[in-house]
Amino acid sequence: MRAARWHGQKDIRIEDVPEQKLEPGTVGIDVAWCGICGTDLHEYLEGPIFIPPAGHPHPISGEAAPITLGHEFSGVVTALGEGVSDLAIGDHVVVEPYIIHDDVPVTGDAEYQLTPDMNFIGLAGRGGGLSEHIVVQRRWVHPIGPDLPLDEAALIEPLSVGHHAFMRSGAKAGQVALVGGAGPIGLLTAAICKAYGLTVVISELSAARKAKAAETGVADHVLDPSDGSVADRVRDLTGGVGADVAFECSSVNAVLDTLLDAVRPTGVVVNVSIWGHPATVDMQKLVLKEIDLRGTIAYAHDHARVIELVRAGKIDLAPFITGRIGLDDLVDGGFEQLIHHNENHVKILVSPRPLARS
Amino acid sequence: MRAARWHGQKDIRIEDVPEQKLEPGTVGIDVAWCGICGTDLHEYLEGPIFIPPAGHPHPISGEAAPITLGHEFSGVVTALGEGVSDLAIGDHVVVEPYIIHDDVPVTGDAEYQLTPDMNFIGLAGRGGGLSEHIVVQRRWVHPIGPDLPLDEAALIEPLSVGHHAFMRSGAKAGQVALVGGAGPIGLLTAAICKAYGLTVVISELSAARKAKAAETGVADHVLDPSDGSVADRVRDLTGGVGADVAFECSSVNAVLDTLLDAVRPTGVVVNVSIWGHPATVDMQKLVLKEIDLRGTIAYAHDHARVIELVRAGKIDLAPFITGRIGLDDLVDGGFEQLIHHNENHVKILVSPRPLARS
Repeated sequence: MRAARWHGQKDIRIEDVPEQKLEPGTVGIDVAWCGICGTDLHEYLEGPIFIPPAGHPHPISGEAAPITLGHEFSGVVTALGEGVSDLAIGDHVVVEPYIIHDDVPVTGDAEYQLTPDMNFIGLAGRGGGLSEHIVVQRRWVHPIGPDLPLDEAALIEPLSVGHHAFMRSGAKAGQVALVGGAGPIGLLTAAICKAYGLTVVISELSAARKAKAAETGVADHVLDPSDGSVADRVRDLTGGVGADVAFECSSVNAVLDTLLDAVRPTGVVVNVSIWGHPATVDMQKLVLKEIDLRGTIAYAHDHARVIELVRAGKIDLAPFITGRIGLDDLVDGGFEQLIHHNENHVKILVSPRPLARS
Repeated sequence: MRAARWHGQKDIRIEDVPEQKLEPGTVGIDVAWCGICGTDLHEYLEGPIFIPPAGHPHPISGEAAPITLGHEFSGVVTALGEGVSDLAIGDHVVVEPYIIHDDVPVTGDAEYQLTPDMNFIGLAGRGGGLSEHIVVQRRWVHPIGPDLPLDEAALIEPLSVGHHAFMRSGAKAGQVALVGGAGPIGLLTAAICKAYGLTVVISELSAARKAKAAETGVADHVLDPSDGSVADRVRDLTGGVGADVAFECSSVNAVLDTLLDAVRPTGVVVNVSIWGHPATVDMQKLVLKEIDLRGTIAYAHDHARVIELVRAGKIDLAPFITGRIGLDDLVDGGFEQLIHHNENHVKILVSPRPLARS
């Protein structure tokens, strides 16, 4: 089958690879759509980051570069391994793309996302969504029902990142959330906040991203930091109090500073972004308002709830799809497009079947 | 009466000042003992910080420099203002030294420590513990009973800072706490952790402070960072897991880094110290372990619980008293002593009565 494989920086090849074997307890899936993630882009430009370098196989998957990419995907069940009886051929599904030790529990409130050697399908082995077919352990497969379009379903994974960040914030309906940065994760985190009944304020400099925030309806207020203090305007919007929660989705220090300024006393700032450099934090802001600054990574127990939210119509994922390409066009129509026109895109979807560029 | 008043940097004078007037709802107190706080030392060396400068009166107290110092004190009730019926002349008390707007509620779970214009008695007006007598609103007076020695009671205030930090951490009996820095607040925070049934690890470089940590019995383990990775040794002590909570009590960046390294996934790091400079934070540590980094300031609803802990014998405050001086010796025997022999002291107590230097 055809698959996109990472060989090195700026060296991603569409190749023929053998299909994975259907083992007991696994599910065979024909991929429908796979999104390109910022993480994929970082691997393309600066990798290997999550990818195990050649000669250094991942301790769970046993695999190293070259490696199949793609971890934001939807598909259709085509085969059931021995012992899998709660899914049917033809079911529409998404995958929670974890590579985690087999003995780690994933039920209850297990924090399996924080366990040793955790990595991701599509980055550290076990196939990927940027291929025609994948075989996945049953526990990572989430049925989505027949009505949710498979293209929109490819966004369940990044939406789950926003959902997990939201759960980490402890925010409640009726509160005010400030989201710093309207890239894909910022917009999807805002969508989650909105779905849970919060008033959402987005701070964003880019004209294209401001427009997207307005167009998708995820923000009640879109503020441009070049128009003056975002923190002052958030206080004006909240009777002088400040935002209840804030989400750092930019890895820009000035944005983090703004969020610390804009939250109310006992407010919570969740850092959702991945920082390539250390942050400078004015601890006095943390101290004098007793702020909680919280880290969040990926998701745990989020996919099922996110699927419910989307199926219930609380979130419309269609406006976040800004491009559709075929697998053969991945580099030029995907990665290079994101590099040169990043602000105009939220999510480019890739089909493993040939496709005219949209 | 005699009082220590801050006139400027390195200009603290013992002067005669009029006694405050007993108003309705207030309590007159003869000061027994008053501790010198690191905050007082910062005002002496680099102030005004909390002190309202001359010509800029505090919005609640209406006072500005010169101002009477001292906010860690115990005393004996000598007068009751109109309407105060739940205290008696002769009661031993400590003061929660807040200056907060009269209309801010302080009952229930009100976060009164975070309200606008909050400042402290002994820093921003309304008298201070470094004087013979003080008049305080009833709501800030906490009776301690006849059996708790008045010298030890002067440490209830800084112990309440540690208690509040502990409450912010959400830690529970049986867990492991790592305290970074064994200065006065580090030691007292450790004492609170110990009283609540935690295993306490202290990280400290100074030989004198390590000795004090050992002598006071507040630590189960005292680790010296110059002996190798504190985080590795904390993991060794916790079956590879890491500390459940950590308390930053040094305002040293390397200590903060160590705490972020040493806590377990979903661990909590509470910043108790006051930073005079921005901190550098590796956000990836926060993200990949989903750490909570929490600020804490002063106290709220802590004094009564701390008094109970001390009266119940859960904390012995005597070993933390490392000096006793009279008010006239405040500068030479107090501030200058702390500047030149800081590591040998935990708490120097000041009596408003003349006293031989101990």
